[in-house]
Amino acid sequence: VLPDILADGGPAPTSLPTGDYPSADALIGAMAGAVAGLRGRYDNIAAVGCGVPGLVDFDNGHVNHITNVAGWGNVPLRDILASKTGLPVLVDNDANCMAYAEFRHGAARGLRNVVALTLGTGIGGGLIIDGRPYRGSSGAGAEMGHVVIDGDGPPCNGNCPNRGCVEALASGTALAREGRTAAEREPDSALGRARAAGREIDGPEIVACARAGDQVAIDLLALVGRRLGVALSGLANTFDPDVIVLGGGVMDAGELLLGPARAELRRRALTPQNEVPVRAAALGADAGMIGAAILARDEISSGAEVTH
Amino acid sequence: VLPDILADGGPAPTSLPTGDYPSADALIGAMAGAVAGLRGRYDNIAAVGCGVPGLVDFDNGHVNHITNVAGWGNVPLRDILASKTGLPVLVDNDANCMAYAEFRHGAARGLRNVVALTLGTGIGGGLIIDGRPYRGSSGAGAEMGHVVIDGDGPPCNGNCPNRGCVEALASGTALAREGRTAAEREPDSALGRARAAGREIDGPEIVACARAGDQVAIDLLALVGRRLGVALSGLANTFDPDVIVLGGGVMDAGELLLGPARAELRRRALTPQNEVPVRAAALGADAGMIGAAILARDEISSGAEVTH
Repeated sequence: VLPDILADGGPAPTSLPTGDYPSADALIGAMAGAVAGLRGRYDNIAAVGCGVPGLVDFDNGHVNHITNVAGWGNVPLRDILASKTGLPVLVDNDANCMAYAEFRHGAARGLRNVVALTLGTGIGGGLIIDGRPYRGSSGAGAEMGHVVIDGDGPPCNGNCPNRGCVEALASGTALAREGRTAAEREPDSALGRARAAGREIDGPEIVACARAGDQVAIDLLALVGRRLGVALSGLANTFDPDVIVLGGGVMDAGELLLGPARAELRRRALTPQNEVPVRAAALGADAGMIGAAILARDEISSGAEVTH
Repeated sequence: VLPDILADGGPAPTSLPTGDYPSADALIGAMAGAVAGLRGRYDNIAAVGCGVPGLVDFDNGHVNHITNVAGWGNVPLRDILASKTGLPVLVDNDANCMAYAEFRHGAARGLRNVVALTLGTGIGGGLIIDGRPYRGSSGAGAEMGHVVIDGDGPPCNGNCPNRGCVEALASGTALAREGRTAAEREPDSALGRARAAGREIDGPEIVACARAGDQVAIDLLALVGRRLGVALSGLANTFDPDVIVLGGGVMDAGELLLGPARAELRRRALTPQNEVPVRAAALGADAGMIGAAILARDEISSGAEVTH
């Protein structure tokens, strides 16, 4: 199910580590340079699509926050990059892009109403409503990582003033936090031994321990999965979607996370919303990039304005 | 802002108390009789619209539950009523109808993306997305009364298997439950004296005490308002709507409830979603009925199928 944009002859992905660039300006300059490099190799590049892991105002193409990268408050990325490249530019939230990629070419292909979440450092959300991306009235919507599942829960990240959001309780960051606590509490578990050996107790380590049969790690992934299922029950009741698609790095846990999440959703949601399929994303880590590219192509070819 | 359907010459509302009819069949028979009576007085009745306070499958016109009325499991109301009246019939959830009425003629007039809640015995939800009612893939969506705000909270109603839904914590039923506890705990409050005098501690009694200055009742409405605000923060983050409209009997509390709800939303939601206006419904108790009528009219005149 590889999208045509990545088929033979299309541009190969180019990777720029954000950490190598000290400021938003420097990174945008490098992005423009990468675009120029691709245009030297391909003659059919018509637009640039950016999927940003953070808060984006789609309507004006501003980036208001990037998870774990400083210096991105109210940056007019779309206009700067359009000016530097001379190409039309689309800037969207990466989870919106992932949702669109899965809708066009992945786990939600051919369906109409899609709720998508990306489970990474944070939790991003993307929505397809009646076959079209839904971004809300000011272009900032679909932030389903910030629905509350425990009103008195822990504070969310610095950019979100809420407490007990599903991001605060079921993101990769939350999983790692719980993992560190569990490793300390259970020194004889595989997770505890990993800690004693000086390994970082993060999502990949927890997933590795769980896959090796460590019950502490398995229970942790199940706990986080159930928390995710609490949020999914509300989203299912609200949207009555055709499918819920879950992607992002934490989904490397596979059924260890997805099974408990699905079970909790089944237990909590109304009939018939409790029957909604919950699927792992099909396009993997490239889904956001693929979605940004095809969104830029589709929104330009449909005549929608994507740059000033 | 009175809708044209209720302007001079339109049919006057007819009221049938559900409690007078021992079964769904009997009530549907009485509804058909009321329609026949109206057709004897008006010659321009083109369709019947039903706004049902419960779970409705819009696509097939089945009613799966009516709050506080037994005997409504999987009743094909649309087809029965169409057969009895010979008219096209539309059956929708009453909160969807209320949302549509407020969108066409009320507090959300002229806007595009609208989240509406009806605060009564339960909490109903209605959505307008991009100027059209959104009902989900199987016609059962927009049940925002059943988003969780406390995963370990009290069980919801018998029809909803969830715990800690906003309906379980901020509906009229929840308000009355908390009111009875508070009246017992605070015998010297106005609420406590009302209880001692044998009055029923329900929503209207709590609102009356709060309006008379009773701090216990005022605090209760604020508590329920804040819980509502927790749910609203998630809905605002998700939909980034133009407006949130709150209606239903509990809204008789006015700013005593709406103020704390709005403040909690402002405190918890992301920027710019935290700025979404939160308005009281403009069409009052008739909003559901008005919405059902104009939905039936609009969906018929647009050629959409409303009956088999």
